Amino acid sequence: MEFLMNQWYVAAFAKDVTTKPIKQMIAGQSVVLYRTEEGYPCALDDRCPHRFAPLHKGQVVGSNIECPYHGLQFDGRSGLCVLSPHGDGKIPSTAKVRRYPLVERDGLIWIWPGNPALAAAEKVLDLTSFFDAENRSLIAGYYKLKAHVEVVLDNLMDLSHAPFLHPTTLANRDDVKGLRFEMLQEGDVVIANHWLKNVLVSPQFRPFWKFPTLDADGRANMRWNPPSNLQLDVGYTGIGNSSGGGVDLHFAHLLTPASDSETHYFWVSARNFAIGDEAVSEFMEGQVKQAFETEDEPMIEAVADYMGTPDLLSLNPVLLAGDAAAVRVRRVLQQLRQRECAHAQAA
Amino acid sequence: MEFLMNQWYVAAFAKDVTTKPIKQMIAGQSVVLYRTEEGYPCALDDRCPHRFAPLHKGQVVGSNIECPYHGLQFDGRSGLCVLSPHGDGKIPSTAKVRRYPLVERDGLIWIWPGNPALAAAEKVLDLTSFFDAENRSLIAGYYKLKAHVEVVLDNLMDLSHAPFLHPTTLANRDDVKGLRFEMLQEGDVVIANHWLKNVLVSPQFRPFWKFPTLDADGRANMRWNPPSNLQLDVGYTGIGNSSGGGVDLHFAHLLTPASDSETHYFWVSARNFAIGDEAVSEFMEGQVKQAFETEDEPMIEAVADYMGTPDLLSLNPVLLAGDAAAVRVRRVLQQLRQRECAHAQAA
Amino acid sequence: MEFLMNQWYVAAFAKDVTTKPIKQMIAGQSVVLYRTEEGYPCALDDRCPHRFAPLHKGQVVGSNIECPYHGLQFDGRSGLCVLSPHGDGKIPSTAKVRRYPLVERDGLIWIWPGNPALAAAEKVLDLTSFFDAENRSLIAGYYKLKAHVEVVLDNLMDLSHAPFLHPTTLANRDDVKGLRFEMLQEGDVVIANHWLKNVLVSPQFRPFWKFPTLDADGRANMRWNPPSNLQLDVGYTGIGNSSGGGVDLHFAHLLTPASDSETHYFWVSARNFAIGDEAVSEFMEGQVKQAFETEDEPMIEAVADYMGTPDLLSLNPVLLAGDAAAVRVRRVLQQLRQRECAHAQAA
Repeated sequence: MEFLMNQWYVAAFAKDVTTKPIKQMIAGQSVVLYRTEEGYPCALDDRCPHRFAPLHKGQVVGSNIECPYHGLQFDGRSGLCVLSPHGDGKIPSTAKVRRYPLVERDGLIWIWPGNPALAAAEKVLDLTSFFDAENRSLIAGYYKLKAHVEVVLDNLMDLSHAPFLHPTTLANRDDVKGLRFEMLQEGDVVIANHWLKNVLVSPQFRPFWKFPTLDADGRANMRWNPPSNLQLDVGYTGIGNSSGGGVDLHFAHLLTPASDSETHYFWVSARNFAIGDEAVSEFMEGQVKQAFETEDEPMIEAVADYMGTPDLLSLNPVLLAGDAAAVRVRRVLQQLRQRECAHAQAA
Repeated sequence: MEFLMNQWYVAAFAKDVTTKPIKQMIAGQSVVLYRTEEGYPCALDDRCPHRFAPLHKGQVVGSNIECPYHGLQFDGRSGLCVLSPHGDGKIPSTAKVRRYPLVERDGLIWIWPGNPALAAAEKVLDLTSFFDAENRSLIAGYYKLKAHVEVVLDNLMDLSHAPFLHPTTLANRDDVKGLRFEMLQEGDVVIANHWLKNVLVSPQFRPFWKFPTLDADGRANMRWNPPSNLQLDVGYTGIGNSSGGGVDLHFAHLLTPASDSETHYFWVSARNFAIGDEAVSEFMEGQVKQAFETEDEPMIEAVADYMGTPDLLSLNPVLLAGDAAAVRVRRVLQQLRQRECAHAQAA
Repeated sequence: MEFLMNQWYVAAFAKDVTTKPIKQMIAGQSVVLYRTEEGYPCALDDRCPHRFAPLHKGQVVGSNIECPYHGLQFDGRSGLCVLSPHGDGKIPSTAKVRRYPLVERDGLIWIWPGNPALAAAEKVLDLTSFFDAENRSLIAGYYKLKAHVEVVLDNLMDLSHAPFLHPTTLANRDDVKGLRFEMLQEGDVVIANHWLKNVLVSPQFRPFWKFPTLDADGRANMRWNPPSNLQLDVGYTGIGNSSGGGVDLHFAHLLTPASDSETHYFWVSARNFAIGDEAVSEFMEGQVKQAFETEDEPMIEAVADYMGTPDLLSLNPVLLAGDAAAVRVRRVLQQLRQRECAHAQAA
């Protein structure tokens, strides 16, 4: 399944893009990311057009990156070779690398692997109010998954798996009894609401729960934005007390295909409790680590292995009501691919 | 080379099939093996038909296995989904997995990867009298080989390699001089008798040899039962004293193809000496370990690598007299494949 | 890109070919190398024609090699099976392995993977006067590279990379300013001269430099002999004092394709200073180790990975003046391949 190319994808956390270049595979392309000495982030094709050395092993000189093999320098804003240290210094006109449109926002570096003429900064997903960094405490992390991005989306759009896969962290086994699932679509955005009526607060929230008993009403409401950026609002309130005193997280799942079989998973979690408490940040990181590394990741990779193809629907799966949102996401992606393809042919 | 499917294959030792499920690749199929809480062994397709999670990572509930991803339960005797914990609990009629016919006998779990309608328990190879567990001491073990099952059969049906590959354990280098080889066929069973006239008792038997000198007559008689289960009677008697006082092993080599390039090797060795002596069992295990791990396994895998195909005869090998039984086994397998294919087309 | 086959390739250092056989992949073929008990080196196909065991795991018996699986013996000078220990000892006429023409000279074992009828010992590259072992001190070593041999040749024929890839060992970063490049062709031999005018002596030579300042004139002159054997004369003299008192190395780079993606790299370095000084030999080995293992090898393998094909020119690279020799070598190789192919068709 081809990837949507005319889209903004998270390529890195902004803090990791420095004057020490890094390489990142984005939708099958080898990209070097670096920050100029003046502080501007750049994204170029990592493969030098001279003898195909990896530019990310070179050094930053001003706003240029220098090839580690023969010292050619490429400008980060244009991709043009602007300096050859050899002989008379003449630069062949073909000496250039592809430049990727790039936006730095909300602590993230977004790049556009498709047609640069279509890249508009205002299409970058705005997470500022979702993170609400002034009123919430943020933690963040990264994993690489051995699965196609759509197989990871299947997992995230269906949270009915939580009582079974995460019974000691993100959910309780009995949550399944109190769960009501709702699927909505707004344009190309798909929303999967999981309402939890009269359940126990999940283990990760218990240390911060102020009500006299663990009985609560909960929610885990996921919003998928194309191509693969998800916003989860998860939390609990006292029973019948939906408006105040509850605990919640705004959790962004930002997925970027590396290749057909690998996916970058950037996550940011913004909590509304224990603001500024480092010990709580560590505890919450530990919860994510356990749930992800020992539960989600092995399951997603095992499923990807058993599927053998990223195309879930081609396998005629048995579908349950809770799969509706995951299937809808796959259908919208299929429509967007067709639209992108038609647009390319018309151009 | 395709595998025979309408056959019983050893899938596991019975002791290893418990209420903690295990996965086993059998003839290219992923099978979950478990024992119900009532004690019945079951074999199902390991791949959940809902979202393709590995069932063997789930838990046993009564006679069911529960999918670790979304909690669907499948009955071990029918493969049908019998419980969905979601919503109204309705179960789609397509929610089922393949069930494999299974027989537990002689401490082994046998399964039938082919057409279940043809699976008859009485066709399972009867090893009870061969093991003769009341009069012999048994040890057993397992290896996984990186080779096609037929390449392993080549090794086992030709024991003329023993003086060269196993000169300090299973044989003596000079055995080749006293060796007489005989090949017989009984229906679809191929027998390779290796008679050793006036040789030295092999190293593994020496500590248990009661005669005044090491001079002996020996035998290593191998009986191949389709598809890939072999019974070896190996032992020594005093010279000219063929009937009594000798030492011997009944050694079962039970091979099951995992895939085109991997083979399960289950073995059971039943000795007629030092009955019940644990120290001797350990010594005999050490002999198998040395002969197998340092001699047979590296050779079989090197040969498989150099062959590049499981089809020995397509490589126009130089054949010696001692290869007759291995070649005959390959020809019988070819006939059985043709018969199985013709049967399938007629059905 | 196919390899030239009717050529002499270095298969091993002579000291490493002993009565303990070794396996070497040469141009895609598995070769066993050993020395007979009489001291003659032999090269045979490593794959026994009986059951495809690896001969190199067997032992040498007189001038024969014995198969480790069934004890067949093959004569190292003819490749014929000359002994079967089984039954009546009859040897099938097809029991033979390919023998490779072989020459031992200058401490090297050369073999000819192509048509034996065309192998003439006098075509072996004569390195005796280049090594000049009576007047120079020699060190030698071996690496295996994960790259096609032509990608390694690209690296060696263009030394303009040295100031960038080896700025603390083999070169100085500023050398690029004093570098004059010259390409010559003599028949099928391609010469790449790199003249360094008024530079600093490179770090590896400094401890042995006798002039009052580090200012020097240098040279790094590479001579490529088909198929892939290179002689480098690298050294420095006092400025304007080209004839005497300088330091230099004669450095042989002897490349042999193992497969499409792996290359054997044998090297010998003969210095004209600190003759017989073991501590200096160790220092010089350390310089090669650093330059090769931490600089050239990772770069060559990264380039091979990014190229994805050994055919540089098919990738439309940006070419600089300094690439002329590497490109010329590729063109001569192409001509030699066509000549070899035409010769084979005419025969």
